[in-house]
Amino acid sequence: MTLEETIARIRPVDRSQEASIQSHIDNLTKPQGSLGQLENIAKRYVLASGQGWPSVGKKRVCVFAGDHGMVEAGFTFSEQVVTGQIVRNMLAGGAGINVFSRHVGVEVECIDVGIAADMSDAEGLLDRKVAWGTQNIGKGPAMTMAECEAAVGVGIERAQVAAAEGVTMVATGEMGIGNTTPSSALLAALLPCSVPEATGPGAGFKNADGLRAKIALIEQALEVNRAALDHPLTALAAVGGLEIAALTGLCLGAAEHKMPIVVDGIISSAAALVACRLCPEVADYMFLAHQSADPGHAYFVKGLGLQPILQLDLRLGEGTGSVLAMHLIDAAIKMYTEMASFTAAKVTNPEVNARCYPA
Amino acid sequence: MTLEETIARIRPVDRSQEASIQSHIDNLTKPQGSLGQLENIAKRYVLASGQGWPSVGKKRVCVFAGDHGMVEAGFTFSEQVVTGQIVRNMLAGGAGINVFSRHVGVEVECIDVGIAADMSDAEGLLDRKVAWGTQNIGKGPAMTMAECEAAVGVGIERAQVAAAEGVTMVATGEMGIGNTTPSSALLAALLPCSVPEATGPGAGFKNADGLRAKIALIEQALEVNRAALDHPLTALAAVGGLEIAALTGLCLGAAEHKMPIVVDGIISSAAALVACRLCPEVADYMFLAHQSADPGHAYFVKGLGLQPILQLDLRLGEGTGSVLAMHLIDAAIKMYTEMASFTAAKVTNPEVNARCYPA
Repeated sequence: MTLEETIARIRPVDRSQEASIQSHIDNLTKPQGSLGQLENIAKRYVLASGQGWPSVGKKRVCVFAGDHGMVEAGFTFSEQVVTGQIVRNMLAGGAGINVFSRHVGVEVECIDVGIAADMSDAEGLLDRKVAWGTQNIGKGPAMTMAECEAAVGVGIERAQVAAAEGVTMVATGEMGIGNTTPSSALLAALLPCSVPEATGPGAGFKNADGLRAKIALIEQALEVNRAALDHPLTALAAVGGLEIAALTGLCLGAAEHKMPIVVDGIISSAAALVACRLCPEVADYMFLAHQSADPGHAYFVKGLGLQPILQLDLRLGEGTGSVLAMHLIDAAIKMYTEMASFTAAKVTNPEVNARCYPA
Repeated sequence: MTLEETIARIRPVDRSQEASIQSHIDNLTKPQGSLGQLENIAKRYVLASGQGWPSVGKKRVCVFAGDHGMVEAGFTFSEQVVTGQIVRNMLAGGAGINVFSRHVGVEVECIDVGIAADMSDAEGLLDRKVAWGTQNIGKGPAMTMAECEAAVGVGIERAQVAAAEGVTMVATGEMGIGNTTPSSALLAALLPCSVPEATGPGAGFKNADGLRAKIALIEQALEVNRAALDHPLTALAAVGGLEIAALTGLCLGAAEHKMPIVVDGIISSAAALVACRLCPEVADYMFLAHQSADPGHAYFVKGLGLQPILQLDLRLGEGTGSVLAMHLIDAAIKMYTEMASFTAAKVTNPEVNARCYPA
C-alpha cells in the first residue's frame, strides 16, 4: 500500500453517532460529566473504532528505532552506539517500555528502520532497515525522498499487520539517540513557534552548553533545508528521522484501519503532526498519551487540539507514556460498557435527562 | 485501638534510605529523571512501605457511606434516598468504583457508617452504622464527639483488618449525597481559603441558585459551629460527616501499619487533612490520586504539598480516582524492581553517576 493509497482510504469518523453516544454516557450511574476526560475519551474511542459497542482488545506498541547523523555534533548525553544497546535491552525485556507494557498488557514490537549498527544477530528484532542512520540535518537533508517514503511505508505495513492480527489499539514508540533534535526541528518547521520554543533538553546534554548547541544546530538545519519545509512530507525527509517517518506511516495506517492510535511524547508528536498535515482526518483516531516535560510538546498539544491524558513530566520516550495511557483508555471503554444505567440500578433520578446545574 | 493509641504508634518514614533509593533509580536504563513523577512515586512508596524491595501486592478500596442532615436545605441535585441506592449499585457491581476496581485489580469493601435508611437486607454491606445520618451543619454540630470518635474508630478498624488480611496499599472511597458540602466546610475551616474558594458544584444542583445556597449554608455552618473549629477533631465532629470521619480513621490506621494510602477527591481530601492535622507524619504514607475538578481541591493540594497523580477533571468520588491512580503507583513499583540497570544491560554510560545537563 503506497502513501497515497493509504491516505485515500482514510475516512472521517461518523459524527452522526455522537448524540446517541453522549446520551448513553449521561444515563450511567454518576453525575453528568463527573468522569471528566474519561467520558470524552470513551466518546472519541467509540467514534474512532466505528463500533457502536466497543471492547477492550489486543494492544500493541510499535517501537521504531533509528539513528541520527546530527549526533556527530557532539552535544547529546549518550553516544550513538547506545541506540542499538537500548534496543537489545528492549528485546531482553528490561527497558521501561517492556516493564510498563507487561503491566498494562501490551505487546511490544521492535522494528529496526535505521539503526547505524549491525543488528543481524538481535533475536526478535524486525529488520526493516532503510539506511544506517540519517545524514546530519545541520548540513543537508536527513534522508532522500525515497528513503523517507520507504520508512513511512514500514509504518503503514506495521499498522496493516497489527490490524490483520486483531490488534484493536496501537501505540507509538521509538528509540534513537538524538531524536528529540529532528523532532523539535519538525515542530518549529510546521507549527507557529520559534526554534528556542520548540527545543528542550531531551534526554540531557554532555555539558551546560548543550541546549544552546542544540538550538543552533536546529536553526542551521532549517536554514540549509529551507526549500523543503513547505510540504510536510519533504520537511519530514529534510529534517526528520527514519523512525519518525515510520511513525508517521503508523499513524496513517492506523487511521486507515480505524484502529485508535495513542501518541507518546515529542518524537511521536512530530510524526503525528506530519500525518495530520498529510491527512487531517487522522486526528480523529489519535489519543495524546501525555503532556511531555519537553517544552516544545506544549505547542504540539495546542496545534492539534488534543487533550493529553497523563501529566507525569515524562520524557523517556520509547512509548512509555502511551502504554500507560492505554490503561486509562481501557478504563474509559469499561465505563461505557460495564457501568449500570440509572434505570437498571433503579436509582431515583427523575431529572436525568433534564438540566443539572451547572450543566 | 483508640484514636490516641493509633496516633502514638505512627512513625515517620526512615529518610536515611532516601539516597540509596535515589541511586538505584538513577542507575536504571533511562535518562536520569526522565520518568518524572513516577520516580518520585517509587521513592515515596519504598519509604512508606518500609521495605527496601517493594512489590505489587493486594489492593483494597474502603468505601464508607453516610448521609447528611444538610440535604434538607434542598439544593443538592439528588435526594438523600440515592445514597443507599448507589450503595446497592456498588454491592451489585455496577457503579464506577466497581468497574475501575475490577480493571485495576482492587477489592471493594463497602461500609455503612451512617446511611439514613435501613440497609439490613443489603448483602455484602458491612454494618458499622454509627447514626442514621448527621444533623444539619447549618443549624448546629453534625455529630456528637462520641459519634465522631466512633466513626473514626471504624476507619481505624478497617485499616487494621486490611493490614491483617495482607493488603499492601489501600484507597479511600465514599458515598453520601451532599458530602461535598461538609468537605468544603472543613477545608474552609482548616485551610487559608474563603468559603467561596473552597466550594464547588460537587455533583451539581437542582437549579441555577445552587452554588449560592451551598456557600450560604457553609458560611452559616462555620458561624454556628465557630467554637468547635479550633481543633481538627472537634471541627470534624461539628461540620464533617460520618463517612469523612471514618476516612480520617482509615488514613491514620494505614499510616500506623505502614500501608500506603491513596487519597481520592475533595471528600477524601477533607478527611486526609484532618488526619494530617492530628498527626503530620501521616502525609508520608499518603498519595494524592488526582486533582479534582472541584475548585476547593486545589487549596488542599497546596496545603498538603502532595502532587496529584492524575488530572482528568474527575468529580465522581466513590474512590474512582484513587483506584485508577493505584495502577500508576504499581507501574512505579515495577519500574523500580523490573527495569534493567545500565550495568546489567551493558549500556555505554560512563557518566551515569556524573552530571547530566540540565540535572
